[in-house]
Amino acid sequence: MKKLPVILSFMLAMFPTVVWAAEEAGAATAFATSLLWIAVILMAAKVSGSLVEKMGQPSVLGELIIGVVLGNAALLGLTIFEPIKIDPNIAWLSQFGVAILLFQVGLESTLQKMKQVGVRAFLVACVGVIAPFALCTCVVAPLLLPGLSFGTYLFVGATLTATSVSIPARMFQDLKKLDTPEAQIVLGAAVIDDVIGLIILAVVTAIARVGSVSIASIGWITAEATLFLVGSIIVGQLLAPFLGKYLSKMQPGQDMKFTMAICFCLVLAFLAQQIGLAPIVGGFAAGLILVPSYFSAFKDPPVVDDIKEAIAGLDESAKEKILATMKQYSNSHVEDLIRPVGWLTVPIFFVLIGMNVRLETMLDLPVLLTALAITAVAFIGKMASGLVAGKVDKWIVGVGMIPRGEVGLIFAVMGKSMGVITDEIYSMVVIMIILTTLCTPPILSYLLKRKDKKG
Amino acid sequence: MKKLPVILSFMLAMFPTVVWAAEEAGAATAFATSLLWIAVILMAAKVSGSLVEKMGQPSVLGELIIGVVLGNAALLGLTIFEPIKIDPNIAWLSQFGVAILLFQVGLESTLQKMKQVGVRAFLVACVGVIAPFALCTCVVAPLLLPGLSFGTYLFVGATLTATSVSIPARMFQDLKKLDTPEAQIVLGAAVIDDVIGLIILAVVTAIARVGSVSIASIGWITAEATLFLVGSIIVGQLLAPFLGKYLSKMQPGQDMKFTMAICFCLVLAFLAQQIGLAPIVGGFAAGLILVPSYFSAFKDPPVVDDIKEAIAGLDESAKEKILATMKQYSNSHVEDLIRPVGWLTVPIFFVLIGMNVRLETMLDLPVLLTALAITAVAFIGKMASGLVAGKVDKWIVGVGMIPRGEVGLIFAVMGKSMGVITDEIYSMVVIMIILTTLCTPPILSYLLKRKDKKG
Repeated sequence: MKKLPVILSFMLAMFPTVVWAAEEAGAATAFATSLLWIAVILMAAKVSGSLVEKMGQPSVLGELIIGVVLGNAALLGLTIFEPIKIDPNIAWLSQFGVAILLFQVGLESTLQKMKQVGVRAFLVACVGVIAPFALCTCVVAPLLLPGLSFGTYLFVGATLTATSVSIPARMFQDLKKLDTPEAQIVLGAAVIDDVIGLIILAVVTAIARVGSVSIASIGWITAEATLFLVGSIIVGQLLAPFLGKYLSKMQPGQDMKFTMAICFCLVLAFLAQQIGLAPIVGGFAAGLILVPSYFSAFKDPPVVDDIKEAIAGLDESAKEKILATMKQYSNSHVEDLIRPVGWLTVPIFFVLIGMNVRLETMLDLPVLLTALAITAVAFIGKMASGLVAGKVDKWIVGVGMIPRGEVGLIFAVMGKSMGVITDEIYSMVVIMIILTTLCTPPILSYLLKRKDKKG
Repeated sequence: MKKLPVILSFMLAMFPTVVWAAEEAGAATAFATSLLWIAVILMAAKVSGSLVEKMGQPSVLGELIIGVVLGNAALLGLTIFEPIKIDPNIAWLSQFGVAILLFQVGLESTLQKMKQVGVRAFLVACVGVIAPFALCTCVVAPLLLPGLSFGTYLFVGATLTATSVSIPARMFQDLKKLDTPEAQIVLGAAVIDDVIGLIILAVVTAIARVGSVSIASIGWITAEATLFLVGSIIVGQLLAPFLGKYLSKMQPGQDMKFTMAICFCLVLAFLAQQIGLAPIVGGFAAGLILVPSYFSAFKDPPVVDDIKEAIAGLDESAKEKILATMKQYSNSHVEDLIRPVGWLTVPIFFVLIGMNVRLETMLDLPVLLTALAITAVAFIGKMASGLVAGKVDKWIVGVGMIPRGEVGLIFAVMGKSMGVITDEIYSMVVIMIILTTLCTPPILSYLLKRKDKKG
């Protein structure tokens, strides 16, 4: 905590500069203005992220919080950051960023590990969808929001089903626990419940619209989504090694390797969206597919060659030791090449999530209380899913599943446009998403530390 | 050339896939469609770039040519790539890319080197502005386009003044000649003539509009632009070391280092645009300012630490040799961190330049002939500037200055909106820009090879 004054004084010094620059930006054309905003977002995210890291929290929490601060500064009369919310370039970059994040997470996971936890992840996903959905639609929603249609209850329940993939991914990444079975189960389950969520959305939309839905159309949606995931992984695994050999023959440099990897991610994200899934699911699948060996025909990064040259005269045992160290920096590390793109775009996504939190929705007491009850259902329902996670820390899995995000919001927006979700209920859903997102990181970090101490 | 069949067969195999995906994309929402287009652009750029590299040309030429192909496929009835031209996300990313490119070039240059060539670069810039401007406005334009106003001649001449910064930058980078005095002179002169171009634009606009211009306003624009460049470099040099120490105390990781560097670039690009200069000039200034020593307080990349650990047991002389090798990979290398962002965004810029080339403008014979004459002036005028470059290869400097780009186009667009530039003249300017851009890379690459053989 020694560095706290350093950070705080930096924030204080930065603030007037940013205010001045932002006022200037009012007159500028869109291109350069977005550049300024990106700089503001990145620097604010890093400073705030470092701050919460010093407190032992994952830095994503800092990014979310600084987003809430910037996005709600208008409540204190400071409206200069408002243009960020409507800047289309920044919105697009943030979407790009979350696709890159999931690609990175996919790269750090492996299909093998995913297969090991596959059945458990599937179980966790199912329970995590059914428990909050049933609890909300059949019990809590009719009790707290009496007199509304069954379609409304269905929709409110549906907003609770899908775990956000991005928040758990960043939490486990920040806390360096991505390779634990708990993290793999949570991430697998979060991807699977996105797929289930898609099916539920189609079903509840049909029910709310025409009062019924055919089994055939449920089956079709399910088949399409499953086919995409399984199909893209199978085709990708067949195609990628071939592509790696082919492209490396053409040009074996690091830039070609980077281009191959990123194009894989972009194309699968595009295909996922075409199928009706979130693009980030495609990014994750791309990361799962690409393994180091597909890139073995590319040249090593310059550092590896330079070291090899430098150690040429040494004796064999010393050489071997150094080469073993270098192995992880040889052609395997696509992650290293993607990382800077993540540094540029991922914080934009999380700061923007924070900025879109509207604190004033919290001020309406009846809405807030009902929202708290729904949030409790959201917590309990997903915690229950941890129970079927098998021989792992059930608490970590349960808590990891809690954060809701984009998919919940999409449900709410759809429901609103269909007239089954009122403005108040929309606010409640937003509050539920805020609370599940902001409260989970500290709890998860506590649980992981407790486990570390035990083990 | 052995690899030619590999590359060509890959292109053939890719094509139907892209066509299919692009047709699919018609129905998709904007976000994921842009992802597909980015993948198409990046892969096409890399494949085409590798192809021309094998022919000994800088890969930027391949990116421009594949852009021309994709952008004019509609002439053969293939309209699927047309949406790329109007995709706002891709347009924005391409602008971002060129700012990153100039930042990278700035990072690879140093202020010291720039100062060494400063006077010569200034002379080259002046001659390179005055020669084509005078030749065109006073001789060629009145001869070939008789009966038009003096304002029109002024504007046509003005479009020839500013050398594109991006094309020479990429050419010298591709050919690994960025650190030669010739490259430094060309880049310095290209930045300076952007500033002069800005002043000329203000002056000719005033003359074309009201028939005269005050010396005071010319002075003011000149002062403002000069002040920005000199001021940002002085302030930047004072601020950056302090910022480096401060931020590294907060969080000494590579991500913070990256964020500091990129924010520096973004903020200066923003400020440049505020002053009325091209944002890329700000990006270049940012790169010039940032030198390795400002980042010395940050942690080394993991590879450096790992190697240090691996060589702990070796004897001193072997250790020293390896550590000397590692030195260039220690905290100095901001370039390494920025590079992947360049791989992602820079090709988009060059492919898009190519795509915006409209081949059909070449079909009007009288227009084409006049355009060729103007292009000849564009070539001769800038070649003349090489004569004042001092003790370097004058041909390389002269040819390096030839490519025109965005600034010339901005002039043409301004003139068109003021009614002094007709549609035909606009086409001529576009043809001049195309030819100066596409013809220069092969000539420059030939000259550089000739010099290598001699030296």
